[in-house]
Amino acid sequence: MRPLRVTIWNEHIHERKHEAIAKIYPRGIHHALRESLIKDTGMEIRTATLDQSEQGLPKALLEDTDVLLWWGHAAHEQVADELVDRIQEKVLGGMGLVVLHSGHYSKVFKRLMGTGCGLCWREAGERERVWVVNPGHPIAAGLGDCIELEQSEMYGEPFEIPTPEELVFISWFGGGEVFRSGCTWTRGSGRIFYFSPGHEAYPIYHHPDIQKVILNGVHWARPRGIKANVPREVPVNEAPEKLQRKGPSVHDGARQPKAATRRPSS
Amino acid sequence: MRPLRVTIWNEHIHERKHEAIAKIYPRGIHHALRESLIKDTGMEIRTATLDQSEQGLPKALLEDTDVLLWWGHAAHEQVADELVDRIQEKVLGGMGLVVLHSGHYSKVFKRLMGTGCGLCWREAGERERVWVVNPGHPIAAGLGDCIELEQSEMYGEPFEIPTPEELVFISWFGGGEVFRSGCTWTRGSGRIFYFSPGHEAYPIYHHPDIQKVILNGVHWARPRGIKANVPREVPVNEAPEKLQRKGPSVHDGARQPKAATRRPSS
Amino acid sequence: MRPLRVTIWNEHIHERKHEAIAKIYPRGIHHALRESLIKDTGMEIRTATLDQSEQGLPKALLEDTDVLLWWGHAAHEQVADELVDRIQEKVLGGMGLVVLHSGHYSKVFKRLMGTGCGLCWREAGERERVWVVNPGHPIAAGLGDCIELEQSEMYGEPFEIPTPEELVFISWFGGGEVFRSGCTWTRGSGRIFYFSPGHEAYPIYHHPDIQKVILNGVHWARPRGIKANVPREVPVNEAPEKLQRKGPSVHDGARQPKAATRRPSS
Amino acid sequence: MRPLRVTIWNEHIHERKHEAIAKIYPRGIHHALRESLIKDTGMEIRTATLDQSEQGLPKALLEDTDVLLWWGHAAHEQVADELVDRIQEKVLGGMGLVVLHSGHYSKVFKRLMGTGCGLCWREAGERERVWVVNPGHPIAAGLGDCIELEQSEMYGEPFEIPTPEELVFISWFGGGEVFRSGCTWTRGSGRIFYFSPGHEAYPIYHHPDIQKVILNGVHWARPRGIKANVPREVPVNEAPEKLQRKGPSVHDGARQPKAATRRPSS
Repeated sequence: MRPLRVTIWNEHIHERKHEAIAKIYPRGIHHALRESLIKDTGMEIRTATLDQSEQGLPKALLEDTDVLLWWGHAAHEQVADELVDRIQEKVLGGMGLVVLHSGHYSKVFKRLMGTGCGLCWREAGERERVWVVNPGHPIAAGLGDCIELEQSEMYGEPFEIPTPEELVFISWFGGGEVFRSGCTWTRGSGRIFYFSPGHEAYPIYHHPDIQKVILNGVHWARPRGIKANVPREVPVNEAPEKLQRKGPSVHDGARQPKAATRRPSS
Repeated sequence: MRPLRVTIWNEHIHERKHEAIAKIYPRGIHHALRESLIKDTGMEIRTATLDQSEQGLPKALLEDTDVLLWWGHAAHEQVADELVDRIQEKVLGGMGLVVLHSGHYSKVFKRLMGTGCGLCWREAGERERVWVVNPGHPIAAGLGDCIELEQSEMYGEPFEIPTPEELVFISWFGGGEVFRSGCTWTRGSGRIFYFSPGHEAYPIYHHPDIQKVILNGVHWARPRGIKANVPREVPVNEAPEKLQRKGPSVHDGARQPKAATRRPSS
Repeated sequence: MRPLRVTIWNEHIHERKHEAIAKIYPRGIHHALRESLIKDTGMEIRTATLDQSEQGLPKALLEDTDVLLWWGHAAHEQVADELVDRIQEKVLGGMGLVVLHSGHYSKVFKRLMGTGCGLCWREAGERERVWVVNPGHPIAAGLGDCIELEQSEMYGEPFEIPTPEELVFISWFGGGEVFRSGCTWTRGSGRIFYFSPGHEAYPIYHHPDIQKVILNGVHWARPRGIKANVPREVPVNEAPEKLQRKGPSVHDGARQPKAATRRPSS
Repeated sequence: MRPLRVTIWNEHIHERKHEAIAKIYPRGIHHALRESLIKDTGMEIRTATLDQSEQGLPKALLEDTDVLLWWGHAAHEQVADELVDRIQEKVLGGMGLVVLHSGHYSKVFKRLMGTGCGLCWREAGERERVWVVNPGHPIAAGLGDCIELEQSEMYGEPFEIPTPEELVFISWFGGGEVFRSGCTWTRGSGRIFYFSPGHEAYPIYHHPDIQKVILNGVHWARPRGIKANVPREVPVNEAPEKLQRKGPSVHDGARQPKAATRRPSS
């Protein structure tokens, strides 16, 4: 089987700006994620950061990506709208997208959700307990009843997202809140997984169960099908049932026969 | 009960450009829709068109709208992005949105769906049969098993939308295709209803059952709740459970107590 | 408007068996629920208990019910299967159903869900905080960010239910767990609302916000449409498009014309 | 990789009773399905029929099944309730279930759906066109835009099922109806796929694209996770957060410490 081509995108700002963060992720969050995924030999893993040419994601690399991971926090607004357009298009065509932590507020996640994606938060180093609510889901494979994080940033409800198609995790916080911390959606032919733990001030991506979830999520999000063959005009002479055109028209040229557009089985 | 404030937006181009369309809708599609809704005395109905000042939807009018209807076809790209931002914000805050026919490709619908919203089409004046698949849904109230339209534009699958929360209608076309012609979603606190019949070349909005669906859809989409109170930082001293702050921080000022933000019951 | 006909069913066992419970609900949980709903003058409220004739729900009463509330705990197995059949049939035809607390394990809820409906629990009188995750939902109308219950029974995940169509509440527990405490589904033409707070050992149904939720839930669950007109054979001579019968048959009598079965619009 | 253990259950009545059906499926529908699946070398395929001992599904065989296919039509009522209980339990624990054609009215499908599962039908040998509405779904892999069946039984809406989690196919019929012909649900940890084409009077299971769908469906339905670890009492001394028991109790023995029940990560 062809290796799964995974690209980890990280804005890579806080790790270079705050000494405390640098101690946790000396080579950046993207490298920590890379090291945990690389144990899976069926993957080909690349990293990309905001400060690179074309914001780390030139067309050729994006074309060559099966699953994209996204971590951003301080510089969401710097991401170019054209890049967001291209990523959205790729996801609709089948590319998987794994959005991590503060990536909930990234342009690309907001674009694909259609909502504000806001939430409540508190940075107090409190306890988070990530409960598995869907033990039959492959993203929860290998986990126990819950994951315990001694220090985490609180993310709380209401989380302004469309109803997830599948809810995999709900988090409990020491300060008293709850949060839908693992959610999935399909958009076009692509799969999206949002996973909230991962505040950069704590070593969350070094936790083996968190690594397991992200690995599972990448596998789950792998492309499964083809892009919808739309938009597309079906000419009258190509209607599945024989038709005679009737009535007025507002579509220029709609009366001319068109080349075949129908897709056969393979 | 306060009247429901309904605003019907129409780009109003084809009715002025094509003689055949002008015969069907001499005062524009928005007026035909208005005349069918106005029988409901509990509504206050306004119309708006693209050529008006502020594209027909100045802030004050949008603020004053409970349910917005949207009809566009030829000029989607002319609608200002700032207006789309404002409409999205209003929907997330609770305003209902009823998107009609070619409005599937409008900026505002694509923004709220997060997908391409493409489909197949054919303008051949063929028969459409709109089947009720959810007879328990209030949008289908008063309908029989199906609505028959002798002449319609074919809209066909795959329709590139997120899975509808509720599917109310599926259409059958004489040329051999099918289409999810009545779909609902919730985005934030707002409800969205998409209804596909309504090609301007045929007198579809004069059909009593089509009028019934749109009236039902407007009622269904009326605001029901309040906007989510996010994004919002919950200060440590305001955590529901008593907390002591621990660990490093990347949020400037996160250590300072904040004013109360919690919302009480009414 | 015709009053909404509400029937509150309660197995009424623990209130008569345990002195501590009797102090909280001297006339039974059904009477406490009745007293809180009766403030709404648009309702006609009846109560029913397991020890009554026909287990409290003779056909005529069920026929006459728009929304049924269900509270049971110790005697789920005593409820007759025939009664469960009738309730299921009524819900599919449009009757609303509000299932409370330990009713998650009732025959009627399990029948309508198709799953085991199991969960984790702990009776320790710990704190529960019921968070609103969907402030736009009418069931959350009038609530603040959350409801705080000083003493509650813990109900924890995984809750073995089909994915709710709408998730309205998620609960936080002092002991460390979370739970999807307010969930909705549609089954046939009927609406179902499950709400978990309500352990009989604590005065939960006397809490004004809990009463508000149940009142909202009853309104939300009111019948909205008609029963699906199935199962039903559509005779060949009644097909919407003209058809000629071809091929062999396994349906006895399928070749004979049948009486018209199609439902017209009203 | 361990082979996928697939069991094909067929009531096997019409093929022995009607000569015309016997010509199409001389060894029964289960054998035709078996022959099309067996090309996939990663599967171990068994067949089972109603007339066998224990109705073809003794406990050991069911225990040893990853995905169960179900075809029934004339004898739904003969299937033992105890067998339905066991199949439901297996599905909730993770076994996949593929329900074919008239199996929509089987006890097992109705049990897992919680609804009546009725529909409209007409046996006229008319044309069916099965449209792919979700080309990104693995069940549609390898298909063109639609599958055309020259002769089929019409199944029409409203189909009395809970809203499918994913809608893969919608069918068009020559007689004028539509139908949600390919639907998926999750129940507990198990996946369910319903696929409607397959009336025994026409050679539908010999169609290569229909065979492709069923093969895809079996792969899609393979077990993915573990059963939920419920129902389960969590003793007070095992609460994740330290708790002190308070208040009265209705649970006998709830005050005694219990053995550890929590599931660790693997």
